[in-house]
Amino acid sequence: MAQSAKRVVLVSRPHGEPKPSDFRIEDCAIPTPGNGEVLLRTIWLSLDPYMRGRMSEGPSYAAPVPIGGVMEGGTVCEVMASNNPAFAKGDIVLARAGWQTHLISDGKGLAKIDPKLGPISTAVGVLGMPGMTAYTGLLDIGKPQPGETVVVAAASGAVGSAVGQIARIKGARAVGIAGGREKCDYVKRELGFDDCIDHRDPNLAARLKEACPKGIDVYFENVGGAVFEAVFPLLNAFARIPVCGLIAQYNDTEASVPKWASSMMRNVLTKRLTIRGFIVSDFAARHGDFLRDMSQWVRDGKVRHREFITEGLDSAPAAFIGLLKGANFGKQLVRVGPDKG
Amino acid sequence: MAQSAKRVVLVSRPHGEPKPSDFRIEDCAIPTPGNGEVLLRTIWLSLDPYMRGRMSEGPSYAAPVPIGGVMEGGTVCEVMASNNPAFAKGDIVLARAGWQTHLISDGKGLAKIDPKLGPISTAVGVLGMPGMTAYTGLLDIGKPQPGETVVVAAASGAVGSAVGQIARIKGARAVGIAGGREKCDYVKRELGFDDCIDHRDPNLAARLKEACPKGIDVYFENVGGAVFEAVFPLLNAFARIPVCGLIAQYNDTEASVPKWASSMMRNVLTKRLTIRGFIVSDFAARHGDFLRDMSQWVRDGKVRHREFITEGLDSAPAAFIGLLKGANFGKQLVRVGPDKG
Repeated sequence: MAQSAKRVVLVSRPHGEPKPSDFRIEDCAIPTPGNGEVLLRTIWLSLDPYMRGRMSEGPSYAAPVPIGGVMEGGTVCEVMASNNPAFAKGDIVLARAGWQTHLISDGKGLAKIDPKLGPISTAVGVLGMPGMTAYTGLLDIGKPQPGETVVVAAASGAVGSAVGQIARIKGARAVGIAGGREKCDYVKRELGFDDCIDHRDPNLAARLKEACPKGIDVYFENVGGAVFEAVFPLLNAFARIPVCGLIAQYNDTEASVPKWASSMMRNVLTKRLTIRGFIVSDFAARHGDFLRDMSQWVRDGKVRHREFITEGLDSAPAAFIGLLKGANFGKQLVRVGPDKG
Repeated sequence: MAQSAKRVVLVSRPHGEPKPSDFRIEDCAIPTPGNGEVLLRTIWLSLDPYMRGRMSEGPSYAAPVPIGGVMEGGTVCEVMASNNPAFAKGDIVLARAGWQTHLISDGKGLAKIDPKLGPISTAVGVLGMPGMTAYTGLLDIGKPQPGETVVVAAASGAVGSAVGQIARIKGARAVGIAGGREKCDYVKRELGFDDCIDHRDPNLAARLKEACPKGIDVYFENVGGAVFEAVFPLLNAFARIPVCGLIAQYNDTEASVPKWASSMMRNVLTKRLTIRGFIVSDFAARHGDFLRDMSQWVRDGKVRHREFITEGLDSAPAAFIGLLKGANFGKQLVRVGPDKG
């Protein structure tokens, strides 16, 4: 056991790409646990792209790390001393100790790791947050069907590698995007993706099209930027796009995609927006429900409506041209012939 | 009964806003129904914004009207003569007769209108496609909860007026956007929306913010353009945005919002894309399922993973900086301390 502790604090908010000088490594004494507390020693610190967001001020889904504060992060820790009956010396726990060697905890938020599930490091990897991000985003939002095509970037990474493999388990075609030939080979040969494309390829869009001859049904968005632009034209009707990250944009000071679109996608992520196109016939099965409820609401006066009528078929072009300008006031109708009776 | 029939055909594809010269009104003979056919007389022709899409070539969810073809459209028709046992002279039916006074039909796609539900014109209005667009888009996608805020544009129109009123029925706050004071007054006083804002107001964004003091939870998108830009900053976390139309963009030749974003929203609509942000903690309830499935898949070799390890806490800043550039190959971990025996 080390005789002193160490921690990494944030000393300045990065402008664009973080620099080593944005961090300071500090030595400190190993703290002593008080009543009900445990002393943890960090074995594994997970580094994940979301941390870039914690370094910046501005709206996100979590507060930023304060200047001078220890960088946040998920960790696998060993309990070195315990004054808390829920934990014993030697327990291995999942914690958010952050970028430091030691931590005092009151036990809240700690979870014992079951070593029977896999090596303890997997608790912050394939069996931890990154794996669960892949699992829920793909299955609960992406909902890949057998024979569909799933595309994911950062395909050799913690999230992307799980996304493609789960897609294959569900019978879908998995196409990865990764940086460089070695990663692409790994993704295809070791992970069993159907194809993997180097995002540095100057013909990225054309290569992606070749790899997705039936278009793209699920795009698991974790990078943004140029990959999204290559993916977009290939999306099929009813495609689903879970958005869990935009790593290619995290360091952006000037957006590489148009500012408005980049800001839009950041908001989709941080606010967990759902943007979904539809036309009414997609919901044909709901017609009975609709007619039952709406006719009742109209009868009860709970839904009122107004008709804006132009007379005679000849009026249709002008009425329609007006409709696009908002010249109508209520439901635009053309009375083509006399009403019956 | 008129002695001759009339129809409106498309003679040129509009560039930007349609002009009267893009249409031609033609006289023709009233056709005679053959075996199994019915002759329909149009009483009501519904004009709807989607028709602008049918006038243009290029990908959409339906084929364009051919040059020289009769403009498409939903209609309420009377059966004038029938050689089809399913329909009797005098029946009132919902049809897609298009912009014409008469139509021969084999009966396919015709639906008898139940006059007990409301005036027959409502079959192409509040009890028809526009009403059902509002109902399904709001309830099945928007899912407004009591106390939430729902915003809809074109609020005095066929779809928007129903959206806001259904939102109120479900206990939500309804804020409309409409063109001009008369429409706004109608939306507030007659339809009972909580507020309505004139989209011509130069302070649209500020006025909308005042009208939505708790932000926006559902934005029912039917116009696009400037309204969407005013709405976007006010969206709350987990807001839902059903997209059923982009009327403000239908006449665009050069997009009024940046081209990339405009094209994106058009695709969201025509391909019925779902774009949804999430972070893993939104799915905390799925953790048990995840751990059960994923640990099994890892054990079975169906999910493989790779760890990319840097040594010592001091390596964290450089490793993290590399992570954002894709320097890692697999799940990035820092070995802060020795693994436990």
